Amino acid sequence: MNFNNITIIGVGLIGSSFALALKERGFKGSITGVGRREEYLARAKEKGIIDRYATVYEEGVKDADLIILASPVGQFEQIINRIGSSIKKGAIVTDVGSVKADIIKKIEPLMPEGVSFVGGHPIAGKECPGFDAAIPDLFKNAKCIITPSYNTDKDALQKIRDLWETVEARIVLMSPEEHDMIFAAVSHLPHVVAYALVNSITEMKDGILDNGGKGLKDMTRIALSPTELWRDICACNQKEILASLKTFSSSLSGMIELIEASDWVGLEKEFRRAKEARQSIESD
Amino acid sequence: MNFNNITIIGVGLIGSSFALALKERGFKGSITGVGRREEYLARAKEKGIIDRYATVYEEGVKDADLIILASPVGQFEQIINRIGSSIKKGAIVTDVGSVKADIIKKIEPLMPEGVSFVGGHPIAGKECPGFDAAIPDLFKNAKCIITPSYNTDKDALQKIRDLWETVEARIVLMSPEEHDMIFAAVSHLPHVVAYALVNSITEMKDGILDNGGKGLKDMTRIALSPTELWRDICACNQKEILASLKTFSSSLSGMIELIEASDWVGLEKEFRRAKEARQSIESD
Repeated sequence: MNFNNITIIGVGLIGSSFALALKERGFKGSITGVGRREEYLARAKEKGIIDRYATVYEEGVKDADLIILASPVGQFEQIINRIGSSIKKGAIVTDVGSVKADIIKKIEPLMPEGVSFVGGHPIAGKECPGFDAAIPDLFKNAKCIITPSYNTDKDALQKIRDLWETVEARIVLMSPEEHDMIFAAVSHLPHVVAYALVNSITEMKDGILDNGGKGLKDMTRIALSPTELWRDICACNQKEILASLKTFSSSLSGMIELIEASDWVGLEKEFRRAKEARQSIESD
Repeated sequence: MNFNNITIIGVGLIGSSFALALKERGFKGSITGVGRREEYLARAKEKGIIDRYATVYEEGVKDADLIILASPVGQFEQIINRIGSSIKKGAIVTDVGSVKADIIKKIEPLMPEGVSFVGGHPIAGKECPGFDAAIPDLFKNAKCIITPSYNTDKDALQKIRDLWETVEARIVLMSPEEHDMIFAAVSHLPHVVAYALVNSITEMKDGILDNGGKGLKDMTRIALSPTELWRDICACNQKEILASLKTFSSSLSGMIELIEASDWVGLEKEFRRAKEARQSIESD
């Protein structure tokens, strides 16, 4: 293990699961949790998720040789502005945010001399927030996307790869821009669609949502996700999310047209195309 | 139990699960499976799901005092045209189709003298078709919507209620029209959206679908459903499905506008409205 003192800013589901994952895999160093709510952090410490905590961010990061940003992406810039001068030389900063290009553009230039930033995004999560939902195997066999920019230090990159391999994630490298295009499509778009779907059903007739079966529940489960997190993601990946929403809108319009035209053969062809694509990832 | 000889037309997931559910709850009569594929029916008999089978539909129904239509809804009219004159007097015909008004309008007038039709729709299912996926508790605690029309015989209605109570479903009565409006919103719309979502993601960039996490998988699982079944449902409930698709389209357009306008406060408000509605059905 390349790190002794790890500070996690944002002791939510991902941050806590990461702490548990490291501890379960023999990490002997110290894990500090940083956040705004002291009582919450104290409970996380009591549960053995973190070893120390701080609500004064500068205090919490000063000994760290690894700092993990695990709060909503909308807060990253402000956090780095606040802690920047307290980070020790040689430390590495990484993150677990769902958006990459925008935040890297903003926070990479804020890194002090001798501090490296490496962007990361583990594809793991649940709708329930907070450390009570944390599990040590959340990242096991999950993909972790690491998004080096042309500024990224090679040595720091290798250490972050090793870090995620320690918790048994499968590393995938891609550029921040490619990441944001792909995850706009496979993650951000579905979230916006799930929120819109729930709203439209309640608009059609109030109270009918509970007539849905397992299919509707599965399909709208991500509408239980923290709203401020997804608001931030939409703000940080606005351009790609809009592009994916427009592609989806036209797929949907195409289906509406087929139904309006009673073109059942054409409609089933579209359904079958979707089914076959979906089947290709079923066994993953 | 009001019936001795039950014939199930369409020995798929729902038909087979119903047969298993009855048998597990002490049904001592005979269950006949009717379908087109003899080899398939023979295997279902071997597995103990049905007691007898017939590929000549007229043969399969002639002794039945209960006939359950469990094939795709698009086939109901043709099936009743074929078997009508073979149904014995006093028998009851019911169905498990996801669409009600259109099919009731078509098949109720085709019932021979002395034969009653009662429409039903159990809210249960999985994406995997066929009897291999069947389970005896599929309907336990699930809602079963029963949709009497003004023609429905009261005695037959009571017997169909009793039938679903035997397999531990929770009965809900509503008119065929109300059923179709509600299920267009909570079931048919989500299916079309899931198919469109998968297609739009693959259109954005081929091969990226497997970057999605559990959220995407849950959300698109219903795109694995049988395409001909959903084609038929769209054809039979065209008007209500179009209405729900248009309401959804405008919810979606509203979110696109908020994102385009960078109105993050407004967007989060929409997200929160959805989250709260979705939470209200979480514990169901």
